[in-house]
Amino acid sequence: MKIVLGYSGGLDTSVIVPWLGENYRAGVVCMAADVGQRGGVGLLAGKAFATGACAFHGEDLREEFLTDYVLPVLRAGAVYSRKYLLGTAMARPLISRRMVEIARRTGAGALAHGCTGKGNDQLRFELSFAALAPDLKVIAPWREWDIASREDAFAYARARGISLEGVDAEKLYSRDENLWHISHEGGPLEDPANAPGPDVFVWTRDPVDAPDRPLELELGFEAGVPVTIDGRPLSPLPLLLELNEAGSEHGVGRADVVEDRVVGIKSRGVYETPGGTILLAAIQELEQLVLSRGALALKDRLAPLYADLVYEGRWWTPEREALDAMVDSLMGNVTGTVRLRLYKGQATVVSRSAPASLYDLDLASFGACEGYAHSDSSGFVKLFSLSQRALSAQSTAAPGPAALPRRAKPAGSVQPVRTSSAAPVHAHAD
Amino acid sequence: MKIVLGYSGGLDTSVIVPWLGENYRAGVVCMAADVGQRGGVGLLAGKAFATGACAFHGEDLREEFLTDYVLPVLRAGAVYSRKYLLGTAMARPLISRRMVEIARRTGAGALAHGCTGKGNDQLRFELSFAALAPDLKVIAPWREWDIASREDAFAYARARGISLEGVDAEKLYSRDENLWHISHEGGPLEDPANAPGPDVFVWTRDPVDAPDRPLELELGFEAGVPVTIDGRPLSPLPLLLELNEAGSEHGVGRADVVEDRVVGIKSRGVYETPGGTILLAAIQELEQLVLSRGALALKDRLAPLYADLVYEGRWWTPEREALDAMVDSLMGNVTGTVRLRLYKGQATVVSRSAPASLYDLDLASFGACEGYAHSDSSGFVKLFSLSQRALSAQSTAAPGPAALPRRAKPAGSVQPVRTSSAAPVHAHAD
Amino acid sequence: MKIVLGYSGGLDTSVIVPWLGENYRAGVVCMAADVGQRGGVGLLAGKAFATGACAFHGEDLREEFLTDYVLPVLRAGAVYSRKYLLGTAMARPLISRRMVEIARRTGAGALAHGCTGKGNDQLRFELSFAALAPDLKVIAPWREWDIASREDAFAYARARGISLEGVDAEKLYSRDENLWHISHEGGPLEDPANAPGPDVFVWTRDPVDAPDRPLELELGFEAGVPVTIDGRPLSPLPLLLELNEAGSEHGVGRADVVEDRVVGIKSRGVYETPGGTILLAAIQELEQLVLSRGALALKDRLAPLYADLVYEGRWWTPEREALDAMVDSLMGNVTGTVRLRLYKGQATVVSRSAPASLYDLDLASFGACEGYAHSDSSGFVKLFSLSQRALSAQSTAAPGPAALPRRAKPAGSVQPVRTSSAAPVHAHAD
Amino acid sequence: MKIVLGYSGGLDTSVIVPWLGENYRAGVVCMAADVGQRGGVGLLAGKAFATGACAFHGEDLREEFLTDYVLPVLRAGAVYSRKYLLGTAMARPLISRRMVEIARRTGAGALAHGCTGKGNDQLRFELSFAALAPDLKVIAPWREWDIASREDAFAYARARGISLEGVDAEKLYSRDENLWHISHEGGPLEDPANAPGPDVFVWTRDPVDAPDRPLELELGFEAGVPVTIDGRPLSPLPLLLELNEAGSEHGVGRADVVEDRVVGIKSRGVYETPGGTILLAAIQELEQLVLSRGALALKDRLAPLYADLVYEGRWWTPEREALDAMVDSLMGNVTGTVRLRLYKGQATVVSRSAPASLYDLDLASFGACEGYAHSDSSGFVKLFSLSQRALSAQSTAAPGPAALPRRAKPAGSVQPVRTSSAAPVHAHAD
Repeated sequence: MKIVLGYSGGLDTSVIVPWLGENYRAGVVCMAADVGQRGGVGLLAGKAFATGACAFHGEDLREEFLTDYVLPVLRAGAVYSRKYLLGTAMARPLISRRMVEIARRTGAGALAHGCTGKGNDQLRFELSFAALAPDLKVIAPWREWDIASREDAFAYARARGISLEGVDAEKLYSRDENLWHISHEGGPLEDPANAPGPDVFVWTRDPVDAPDRPLELELGFEAGVPVTIDGRPLSPLPLLLELNEAGSEHGVGRADVVEDRVVGIKSRGVYETPGGTILLAAIQELEQLVLSRGALALKDRLAPLYADLVYEGRWWTPEREALDAMVDSLMGNVTGTVRLRLYKGQATVVSRSAPASLYDLDLASFGACEGYAHSDSSGFVKLFSLSQRALSAQSTAAPGPAALPRRAKPAGSVQPVRTSSAAPVHAHAD
Repeated sequence: MKIVLGYSGGLDTSVIVPWLGENYRAGVVCMAADVGQRGGVGLLAGKAFATGACAFHGEDLREEFLTDYVLPVLRAGAVYSRKYLLGTAMARPLISRRMVEIARRTGAGALAHGCTGKGNDQLRFELSFAALAPDLKVIAPWREWDIASREDAFAYARARGISLEGVDAEKLYSRDENLWHISHEGGPLEDPANAPGPDVFVWTRDPVDAPDRPLELELGFEAGVPVTIDGRPLSPLPLLLELNEAGSEHGVGRADVVEDRVVGIKSRGVYETPGGTILLAAIQELEQLVLSRGALALKDRLAPLYADLVYEGRWWTPEREALDAMVDSLMGNVTGTVRLRLYKGQATVVSRSAPASLYDLDLASFGACEGYAHSDSSGFVKLFSLSQRALSAQSTAAPGPAALPRRAKPAGSVQPVRTSSAAPVHAHAD
Repeated sequence: MKIVLGYSGGLDTSVIVPWLGENYRAGVVCMAADVGQRGGVGLLAGKAFATGACAFHGEDLREEFLTDYVLPVLRAGAVYSRKYLLGTAMARPLISRRMVEIARRTGAGALAHGCTGKGNDQLRFELSFAALAPDLKVIAPWREWDIASREDAFAYARARGISLEGVDAEKLYSRDENLWHISHEGGPLEDPANAPGPDVFVWTRDPVDAPDRPLELELGFEAGVPVTIDGRPLSPLPLLLELNEAGSEHGVGRADVVEDRVVGIKSRGVYETPGGTILLAAIQELEQLVLSRGALALKDRLAPLYADLVYEGRWWTPEREALDAMVDSLMGNVTGTVRLRLYKGQATVVSRSAPASLYDLDLASFGACEGYAHSDSSGFVKLFSLSQRALSAQSTAAPGPAALPRRAKPAGSVQPVRTSSAAPVHAHAD
Repeated sequence: MKIVLGYSGGLDTSVIVPWLGENYRAGVVCMAADVGQRGGVGLLAGKAFATGACAFHGEDLREEFLTDYVLPVLRAGAVYSRKYLLGTAMARPLISRRMVEIARRTGAGALAHGCTGKGNDQLRFELSFAALAPDLKVIAPWREWDIASREDAFAYARARGISLEGVDAEKLYSRDENLWHISHEGGPLEDPANAPGPDVFVWTRDPVDAPDRPLELELGFEAGVPVTIDGRPLSPLPLLLELNEAGSEHGVGRADVVEDRVVGIKSRGVYETPGGTILLAAIQELEQLVLSRGALALKDRLAPLYADLVYEGRWWTPEREALDAMVDSLMGNVTGTVRLRLYKGQATVVSRSAPASLYDLDLASFGACEGYAHSDSSGFVKLFSLSQRALSAQSTAAPGPAALPRRAKPAGSVQPVRTSSAAPVHAHAD
C-alpha cells in the first residue's frame, strides 16, 4: 500500500516519511512541487530517499501555478484581510491536484500532508482532496502523532537513525515561498506588538536601504493579463520574475498583517509580494479607466468573497468558477498600459492609458462641451434630489432625532429678474 | 429679498455676488466657511463687500467639521474609488447646513452656490438643501448664466467696475482645501496619461525630497477616535494638524485617482491627505486586532456604501444614519495604540496593541496549547469539507467541465498500524 | 427625414404620429412589437397609417423576448422591490434594439417613444438607444409638448381630423402587457391605501373564484431552463403560455407593489405574472437541492443587483453581461423536476428531485451514518466557537453593554467518571 | 458537583438525566424553558425527578423570547434559506442564557444539552455557552454515548428501571415548538421528493380545508413593532397568539424548505409560522411605503447576513449587535397600518398607510404636478445615460461580443421645426 505525501524537505515532512512507514506500514511516495521557491525541488530526491521514501516525484508546476491560479486571483482583485495577496493559499489546490494525479498513477490509497492542526493549510489540502479524490484516505500526522516540538522531531529521527542533514535545527520563522510571495510567521512575529526585525525579510530590501533614485516601469496588459514591461513582450513567468526583482530592489511589497485564520484564530503574518504588489496596483489603475462605475462596483464587491474562497481552501467550488466567469466577462477590455514609479517601498501610478478607456477628455474638463451643457444637470439634480425632498417632508411629519427647525414658507419670493434685457436666459431657473 | 451664497472668495463666487444682485434683485448674504483651509475666512469680508454683498458671515466650522463629519467617515472606513478619502465631499453637507441656518436667521428666501453643472458638488449642496430647507429656492448660476470661461468672468467683473484684486487670473488647477485634504483637478491633470507635475502638490513634499530618516509615531485611539500622539493627549483638531504636518514632511498621503462622478463622467483628481492617510492606516490595524472576523467583514462590506453616500451628497439620509449607528456599535472596543513608520511617502505599521485585543498569543503559536489540541481540528476539517465531498459526488453524477477522472474505490485499504505498542494513539485517524 | 417610433396604437402614440410629422417635418416609421400581448400587432398597421405614419413594421419578437430576455432574468432570480418580476422592464431593451435596427434599415435619423417624463420606461428606451445608436437623435414628445391630459390628446387629434377610433376614451388604468405579465397602474391604484378592485385584474381569477380543487404540475428543467410540463417536452413559448393559463385559472401570480421608480418617485403597481410566478417558485426549489450553500448565497446576493440593472434600463452594460456569465456558470447543474400545487392564488412546492442533487439522505437523517459520526462534530463545534470564546474574554477585559456576570472559575471540577466499566468512551469529553 | 441540563421531557433528555448521573457522578439540574410550546413546562417537574434529576427549574421565557429575540429578528427581516423564519434558531440563545444563569445560581460546573452531532442546535447552544460562560464545561451526550437509536434509549432506561411514561415510543417526526413556530423533520420528510403528508402539520389547517371566506385584518405598527389588530391595542404576546390562531385557521404560514445546515449537510424541514408569516408580510409592506429606496436596499442586503448569524448560533456577537443598531435606526418611522387578507394559505396585502409615508400621490400620478414637470427628466435622462454613451463608444473602439453595426453619422439631420408658431417650446429638444 502506498501513501502520497506532499513533501517539502523541511523538518516536518522529513520526519513524516518514516513515521508514515512505521505507523501505516505503507510505501511513502514523496511529491515535491516546484512552485517557484528558491532552490526548486532538484535536491530533494536524495533527502526523501534518505528518510525512507519509496518514490520521489519532483514536479515543475510554475507555469501552471502562474497561469491557472495566480492570474485568476490577480484579475479578481482578491486580497484577504485587506493586505494579504494569498500567495500560499492559492498554491495549495494545485499541489493537491498533482498529489491526486500521482496517487492515481501510482495506485496509492492515501494522501498525507505536513500541516499542523492550527493552520489554514490543512483545510486547503483536504478540501482539495475531498473535491478531487473523496475516495482516498487522508492522513494528517500533526493531528495524530505525539511529536509536539522541533526537539521531539529531531529526537524521533535520531532514535531511528535517520539523517536530517540540511534541516535547520534552529529555525526561527516558519516560511512559505513560491514565485508570488514569501511568507513569514512564528518566533517574535507571534506578538503583533513586535515590529518585524531585519532578519525576517528575505526577498526585499528595507525601503530605507533601497536605491535613492526611483525606477519607472511601464506595464502592458491584455484583457487583464500582464504582457509587456516597457514595451518588451514577455510571457507571464519571466515577466513576474523581472517584477519580483525590481520590486525587491526597491523594497516594494512588504505587508505586515493580523489576519483571521479559518479555524477561528487571529494570527500574524508578514509577507513579501513585490511583483504581485506592482501588478495589482497597475491593473487597478487600468480598471478605473476602462470599467464603468457599475462594473467596478461589482468587481470590488465580489473581490473579498473571492479572497475568502481562496483563503479558506474552497478553490474547487462552483462559486469560484462562477466568479471566474464573471471576472473573465468584465476584464475583456482591460487592455492598455500603466506607468508606475517604484521608490522606497511604494509602487505609485504615474500615468495610464487604454484604447477602450471610458475617460472622455471633453467631458472631464470643467468647460461646457459637445454632449454636455451645464444646464443639462438642472433636471438631473432636481430628480436626484426628489427622494431627499420626500425624506425632508417625512421628518417634518414624523420628527426624528436630528434636523433643523424648518419653516413651511420662505420669507419672500425669489424670482429671477426677467425685465433686464441684459440678463441671461433663465429657462431652467426652476 | 435675500439670497445666501456659499462664498469662497474665488473667481466664481466673486462674480456670482454681482450677478445675483443684477439678475435676482436680491441682497446677497455671503457665507464663508472656515473648514481649515489655509488663510481661513478672515480676509474674505472685504472682498465680499467689494463685489456687492449686503452681508458677510465668516464661520469657523473646523471643530464641527472634524467631529461630526470627518471622524464618522474615518471610523466607517469610507474610501471612494479605492483611494479618495472624501475630503471635499464631506465638507459640503456641513457648509450647506450652516447656509440654511443663516438663511433662517436672516430671512433669506434662496440659497446659491458656485458649483458647475459637471461636478459632484452641485449635488452635495442641493441634496443638503433639499433635506434641510426644501422650501428655499436654489440658484446655481453656473447652470443659468452664459459666462463660459475665466476670461468671460473677468470681463463680466470689469464691465461692472468690480475689483477682482487677489483673484488669480492664471489659475491652472482647480483646488479645494480643508483641514482633511487639498484636492487638485484640471489643467494638465485632465489627461490621466499625464503624471502630476511638481507644481500640483501644495501640502506634501515629494517622497524623493522627504527626510532620509523615517519618523515613528504612536497613535492612541479610544472607541475608534484618535486621542493621543506618542502618549500626549490631544483633542482632534490639534492632533490632526500635527499629523498633517508630519505626514506632509514625509510625503505621505498623495493619491492620484481616476474616479466616477455622479453625473456619469470619469474624471481625474489628485489629492493630498497626509493626516487622514495616517489615521486610516492606524485605525485599520487596530480593528484587525480588536474586531472579530465577522465584524471586520461587515464593516468592510458597508464601507463602500458609506463612501458612495458621502460622495453622492446623500449625507442627510436614513441610510447614513443607520450606518453610523452600526459603526458606533462596532467601534466601542477599538481602543489601543498603533505605532507607524512614516518614510518617503508611506505610513507603515510597526506595532499594535489593544486591551480588548482578540489576538491570543497561545492560540496563534504553532504549538498545542490549553484550549486547542491539534487533533481538535480533525472533526472541524471533516465537517468543513463535507459539502466539498457532496460537490465531488455531484460532479461525478453530472460531469461538469473540469475535474479529474476518479475511481470509485481506492487501490488498497490504508489503516493505521495498531499493533505497534510504540505507535501514537490514532483515535482520530478516521 | 425619418423618425422610428415605438408604436403601441394607444392614445399617446396615436397622437405622437401626427405630432412628430407636424413638429419635426419627418416621416414617421411606426414599429409595433409583438411581445405576446393579447391582440398582437396585426391590426395596428391600419391605425398607424390612419394617423399619418409613412411606414409600419409589425415585429413578432415573442421567441426572442422569451429566450434572450425573460429566461436570463428568471435564471438570475431577479425580483425588484421584493415582488415585481420585471415584465415591462425587460421588454424595453429588446423593443429598443429592434427600433434601432429598423432605423438603420430605413435610414432614419431619430428614434421616438411615447413614455412620460415621470416613469422608468423613458430611461429603459433611452439607455438602450444610447448603447446601440448613440448617433441617433432621440425624441420624447411627452417631455416636449404641451399636451397634459387625455382630453388634450383627443382635442389635438380632433383639431387635425385624425380618427382615434378604437382608442379607449375612458381608460382608467395604464396597462402594459406581454407574454410574461400584465401590469396595472393609475386611477384608484395611485393611492396605496386603496385595495385593487375586481376591475383591475385582466388575466387571473380572483383566488376566491378559483377552482376548489388544487392542480398539481410537475415542471422539468435543464440547466435552469424549463423544458417539460408533466413530462411533456415543450419549447419555452408554449410552455409559458400553458403555465400562464393554469396559473391564471388558479389565481396565481398577482402582486401589489409599492416600488421606487428610478426618477426618485414611489409609485404603486399591480402585476399579474402567473406563469412567471410558477417558474420562479419551481426553479428556486431546484436550486436549493442542487446548488451549494455558497453558490446559493452568491446567487441570492447578486439577484437584487441584476433586478436593479433591468429595472433601471441598464441592460446593455458589462455588469449585466458579467452577471449572466456568472449565472450561466452556476446553473449548469440545475436540472431536475419540481412538483407544485396551484391552489387559490398560491404555487406551493410538493416535491423536488434532481440527478445532481447535493442532498444526501444518509447525512440528512438523524442517525449516525457512514461518513459522519456524531462525535465528528466535537472538534467542529470547538473550533467554530473559538472566536466566540475570544469575544467573551474581550467583553470581560473591556466590559461592553450586555453580558452576564461571570466567574473566572467554575464551582467544581466536572470530569467524566472513568471508573465505571459500563460507561461509554469519553474520548471527546473535552 | 452539578450539571445544568436544557430539559424538554422528550426521550433524549429523559435518558440524559440518568446518563449524566451515572457517567459524571453529578447532580442534574433540569431547566425547562417555556417558550410558548403547547403544554408549557408545568408537568415536566415530575418527569424530571422520575428520571433522577436533583432539581428542576421551569422558566416562563415567553415575554422575553418575543421581545428580545423574535421581534428583533422580525424587524431585521431575517429569513434563512429564502423561507425559514428562524423559529428554533432564535430560541436557543435565550435558553442557553437562562441555563447559564441557573448554573451560576446553583453553583453548577457544567452545562449539558440533548442535541445530536448532526444538527445546528448544538452550535447554537455551545456558541451561547462559549459567549456567556466560557469557564463552564459543556457536555453533549449525543456526541459521547453509544446510544444510537430510539430503541437503544428505551432499552437504556428499562435496564435502569426508569419510567419513560408519557414519552412517545413511535414518534415519527422530530418537532420543535414555541410561540413563533412549530418545525417538523425526519421520517418521510427526510426525502425531499416526498410531499409532507397530512400527519405532519399540527397548527395550521390545510389550505384546502380552510374557510371559504377570506378574513381581513388590519395590523398597526409603531417603529416596526406590531401594536394593534383592527385598532385594538395589544401587547406583543396576545397579539402574536391571536395572529397564530387566525393564520392557522386560514392555513397561512406553512413552509417546506430544503436548507443548508451549518455542519455542511443539506436537510429538509417543514415549518408552520402562521403569525410570523402575517407579521413579516405586513411589516414589509409598511417598509416599502416609509423607507427610502436606499434604506430598503440596505436593509434587504443585510437581512440574509442577520439570518445567517441567527441560524448559525452567532447571536452573542458584535455583528448581531451592530445590525440591531442599524435596524433600530432604520425602523424609527415604520409606523402605520397594513390591511391583509388571509385566505386559503396566503396573507395578501390589501391596503397600507403611514403618517411618515414617502409616497406622494401627486408625484406618483402620471400627470405633471407641482414639483415635477415632465421636461425635468430631460436632463436626468441625459446624464443618466452618459455612461451608457461612453460604453457604446468603448465597444466601437474595442469591439466586444454583441452590439449592432453602427454608423458614425445619422442619415439626416433631425431638428424640431421651429417655424410653426403653434408648435410647443422645444427648449429641451437636445
